[in-house]
Amino acid sequence: MARTPDSTRRSERSRSAILTATRELVGETAYAKLTIEAIAARAGVGKQTIYRWWPSKGAVVFDALLAPSASPEDGLIELPDTGDIAADLKTVLRATVAEFADPAFSAPIRAVLTEVINDPDLAALYREKLNAPIHAAKVRRLASAQLAGQLRADADLDLMVDLLYGPITQRWLPGAGPLDEAFADALVDTVLRAFT
Amino acid sequence: MARTPDSTRRSERSRSAILTATRELVGETAYAKLTIEAIAARAGVGKQTIYRWWPSKGAVVFDALLAPSASPEDGLIELPDTGDIAADLKTVLRATVAEFADPAFSAPIRAVLTEVINDPDLAALYREKLNAPIHAAKVRRLASAQLAGQLRADADLDLMVDLLYGPITQRWLPGAGPLDEAFADALVDTVLRAFT
Repeated sequence: MARTPDSTRRSERSRSAILTATRELVGETAYAKLTIEAIAARAGVGKQTIYRWWPSKGAVVFDALLAPSASPEDGLIELPDTGDIAADLKTVLRATVAEFADPAFSAPIRAVLTEVINDPDLAALYREKLNAPIHAAKVRRLASAQLAGQLRADADLDLMVDLLYGPITQRWLPGAGPLDEAFADALVDTVLRAFT
Repeated sequence: MARTPDSTRRSERSRSAILTATRELVGETAYAKLTIEAIAARAGVGKQTIYRWWPSKGAVVFDALLAPSASPEDGLIELPDTGDIAADLKTVLRATVAEFADPAFSAPIRAVLTEVINDPDLAALYREKLNAPIHAAKVRRLASAQLAGQLRADADLDLMVDLLYGPITQRWLPGAGPLDEAFADALVDTVLRAFT
């Protein structure tokens, strides 16, 4: 069947309604209880319409949650660069810690990580679309500090990024230990001590 | 109905068969595809026998995977203490990294983390039974090094543990970056530099 402009428009509307419904439901529902049926009902489409585009719940969740950060209009992700690496890292890590401490913000992270842990294909997509570009942005900010002589010339910047962010994941995953500004600041000061 | 010695023995046999079947299946099956039906079939019991003791797949997986480490016969968990903190941490972190790099070993970790991410009750159980005692054992080894003057007197040992282990989780979760001995050694050397 040839696609008319009208049917293309209808398709785009359905697709967009499905992605919006998914984003809303991820914030409202325990992830294990989120179903394709619930997404279809909220979007006002049939289940088959969802399965036409996505093979699984994980796949539609991924598109819904990762599409915004992957949009080309956003351009290259960049960390703040005021010239003061300690201050800039504290700004970024305080914000990150606050987001992880906020259940509304962390619901989509839980959803995405559940799929990443259990689906190698979605894990590969996550690495490519989200993990790699964000990691690269962090390394760029550290490289700029290194060039300015604020970090050791032989600093392993990939390791430094993992040292800055790993402890946040480590505390957040099991809900162990405080996620507050004091933690963010101590993390930055301690990691900088190792690399200066 | 009064329980006779025979029915108690039968119950214990069923329980043990269910836990063994669960441990085996976690290593063989993608976690999302693991079902109560499959556990029941492997254990040779009915589904209702499982639901008599556990309310969900997550609950039986937790008992199956956490019971061994929680058994009192194991006594207190201890890290090696040869008196050389750098060497001991490298021993432990090389082993940890190797385990995370091994799909057979990391299947149960994936299963447990999936539940921890999505079920606050199981997360609390995980913190109490596994996370807290293991974290405390790591802190004890660091405290012994601190007493020996190998770490700064004002070192935040909780933070130091998270700096040593967080980057491993950070790389392992999305499958990003190498998990090898060079990584373990660099992690130890870098974190020690921050705390000495």
